[in-house]
Amino acid sequence: MGGGKIDFLTGGTVTSPKGFCAGATYAGIKKKVKNSLDLGILFSEAPCVTTGLFTTNRIKSAAVVLCQQRLQQGKAVVLIVNSGCANACTGERGFADAEEMANLAAHGIGVAPEEVLVASTGVIGQTLPMKLIRDGIRQIGLSSHGGHELARAIMTTDTVPKETAVAVSAGESKFTIGGVAKGAGMIHPDLATMFCFLTTDAAVEPDFLRSALRQAADLSFNMISVDGDTSPSDTVLLMANGLAGNQPISPVSPEAEIFQQALDRVCIYLAKAIVRDGEGATKLIEVTVSGAKSAADAKLAARTVVSSPLVKTAVYGGDPNWGRIISAVGRSGADMVESKIDLSIGEVNVLKGGKSRPSAEQDIIKVFQQSEVPISVNLNLGTASATAWGCDLTEEYVAINSQYMT
Amino acid sequence: MGGGKIDFLTGGTVTSPKGFCAGATYAGIKKKVKNSLDLGILFSEAPCVTTGLFTTNRIKSAAVVLCQQRLQQGKAVVLIVNSGCANACTGERGFADAEEMANLAAHGIGVAPEEVLVASTGVIGQTLPMKLIRDGIRQIGLSSHGGHELARAIMTTDTVPKETAVAVSAGESKFTIGGVAKGAGMIHPDLATMFCFLTTDAAVEPDFLRSALRQAADLSFNMISVDGDTSPSDTVLLMANGLAGNQPISPVSPEAEIFQQALDRVCIYLAKAIVRDGEGATKLIEVTVSGAKSAADAKLAARTVVSSPLVKTAVYGGDPNWGRIISAVGRSGADMVESKIDLSIGEVNVLKGGKSRPSAEQDIIKVFQQSEVPISVNLNLGTASATAWGCDLTEEYVAINSQYMT
Repeated sequence: MGGGKIDFLTGGTVTSPKGFCAGATYAGIKKKVKNSLDLGILFSEAPCVTTGLFTTNRIKSAAVVLCQQRLQQGKAVVLIVNSGCANACTGERGFADAEEMANLAAHGIGVAPEEVLVASTGVIGQTLPMKLIRDGIRQIGLSSHGGHELARAIMTTDTVPKETAVAVSAGESKFTIGGVAKGAGMIHPDLATMFCFLTTDAAVEPDFLRSALRQAADLSFNMISVDGDTSPSDTVLLMANGLAGNQPISPVSPEAEIFQQALDRVCIYLAKAIVRDGEGATKLIEVTVSGAKSAADAKLAARTVVSSPLVKTAVYGGDPNWGRIISAVGRSGADMVESKIDLSIGEVNVLKGGKSRPSAEQDIIKVFQQSEVPISVNLNLGTASATAWGCDLTEEYVAINSQYMT
Repeated sequence: MGGGKIDFLTGGTVTSPKGFCAGATYAGIKKKVKNSLDLGILFSEAPCVTTGLFTTNRIKSAAVVLCQQRLQQGKAVVLIVNSGCANACTGERGFADAEEMANLAAHGIGVAPEEVLVASTGVIGQTLPMKLIRDGIRQIGLSSHGGHELARAIMTTDTVPKETAVAVSAGESKFTIGGVAKGAGMIHPDLATMFCFLTTDAAVEPDFLRSALRQAADLSFNMISVDGDTSPSDTVLLMANGLAGNQPISPVSPEAEIFQQALDRVCIYLAKAIVRDGEGATKLIEVTVSGAKSAADAKLAARTVVSSPLVKTAVYGGDPNWGRIISAVGRSGADMVESKIDLSIGEVNVLKGGKSRPSAEQDIIKVFQQSEVPISVNLNLGTASATAWGCDLTEEYVAINSQYMT
């Protein structure tokens, strides 16, 4: 297996890989706050292999349904995305609007409509303001520096844009992977919608691209929780245009392993950025469960702890109440034997072999006061491990989500 | 099947059925606030058939382990219960303490230790203050009016005691069912622990008693959510002492149906009392899902909606954001077809056949401002239905659970 080097790029974004350009405008779909953008386009100048992952919610936005249809070809080169309206629960009219949005982008750029994907986030149950979108699309200028604008155009209650890119060199091959994401946010009223749009100039075989994205998402977006709610719009896309000139990467390529590592790191970076900017969040909680019988058990236990409102409020308030952590582990469904479990908060070991250990509450409080709170659980049953990320639960979360319209 | 009559008794409690007495004291286990009680005993003067349901958490308090062992006999006549310390994650020492607590109660009352059950709620990871408990037990006086004291002795952050009783007459048979419960509360620090202790003077066959309690719990305690966390201490007990003099009720008895109905009503009453008094709660949310393919689907969907932080904050703030409700239904895992779903908030129909309907936001806001908020979802796929209860999520919930020790 070939080694290699992965470097995060300063100012890296979704247009850092060769041949990708983007742009955005304020079309008026969402309420204007300073520098708002709400309609954007991402475009690859060269043909792409494109793959995607979508919400598991049985209620799906029109844009998600359209993407799922068009990705069966796997050739999309354009994404048009809006914030401010999710175009969900809108029936046939919603689907026709999503198609028109794609057609307008296709026409403007000069590609076939089938090569265009659509993503929408915002209010559920309202139809897209098509006049604003028609006018807006004409105002979008595309450039290779446009990734930053796209990162802003997909924000809802996100307080910061989320973007990154890595440069990878593996023997002869040099390629770049970039991405933008939006997190858990609500706008008049919205859902905890998650978008992540990823690009690479690496050439990658379709099947490997799909499995690589699935693995990276399983380690990142599927291991975060802000509030346990999923939306009809969650969308992760990865476009690979091959302009780096490498031989298409397949599972047996020397670059396969480092491509996967680099993609994992970009996705984990963006996933953590989403959680850190969770609504009302003041802290990142990182929970690692090791010694599990299976990877599924480790994931289940880690995700249950980061999702527990009682753990989240304890971390927020610096309340050294570790009984809530072990109780969340206990109800996760993972296989465990109480008398084998170890639990540490930062470096403070509070439970050993299922029994509480004398530990200074002040030491736990100190860890809870950090901006990143590491929690580790060892089930001592097997060799599988997993890490999940969450954020604290604060009065601000309640305020954001209860008082928007009142 | 015999009909009959079920009447809620004014001032009804766990000692309303014949032959049950109770008492409580302040032993000093929990911090004293005015009129605190923290150690109580429930006793049946006549032999009982007793059954119980316990936490599904893999981490179990010593008291839960002890109860599970002793209920294999099904003859318990005494319960000793404390608040302020959960006696969980305390190893062999914790189990020995639970046994000693049972022995002390057995000795004081004059029954065999095996006839005594124990329940503990409070801090996890701390051992019971046995000296306080030894001294406290001696101070407890038992009386047939003591149910109210027991209801207070099990409170943690509950703001009101929760108790009720019903008188049932079915042909020749007249019997009473009573109960006390405690809800989601935390005390220095505690868990969302739930207790419910039920009594009846009806004679009931052991197998039917067990299945009746399971059904009643499935309709009540298993259909409520305050914050999605379960504790190592959750305990529901039902003692039947037969002093009403009826023929023991079995599934084919004329009284079987009304006994089940009465037990269901007592449990639903107490379950709703728990949710209404959820930490920081200002409103009760009642979600009914009908037209499901199976009862399991209906329960899953109803429970997911009442557990959604986004639904809970919307109801709290009176934010007419029904997209959050339908999204929670969508992610519940229940079988559904988006284009068939109807959704109403109170009498306001907001979604019909999966499409949003023009409805006045002000009408939805009015429903959300009620102290009880009814939400109904019809999946229009089958005939199964279920109702779940939850409460809103407020800044006060966060404050209670984050700032206890700091």
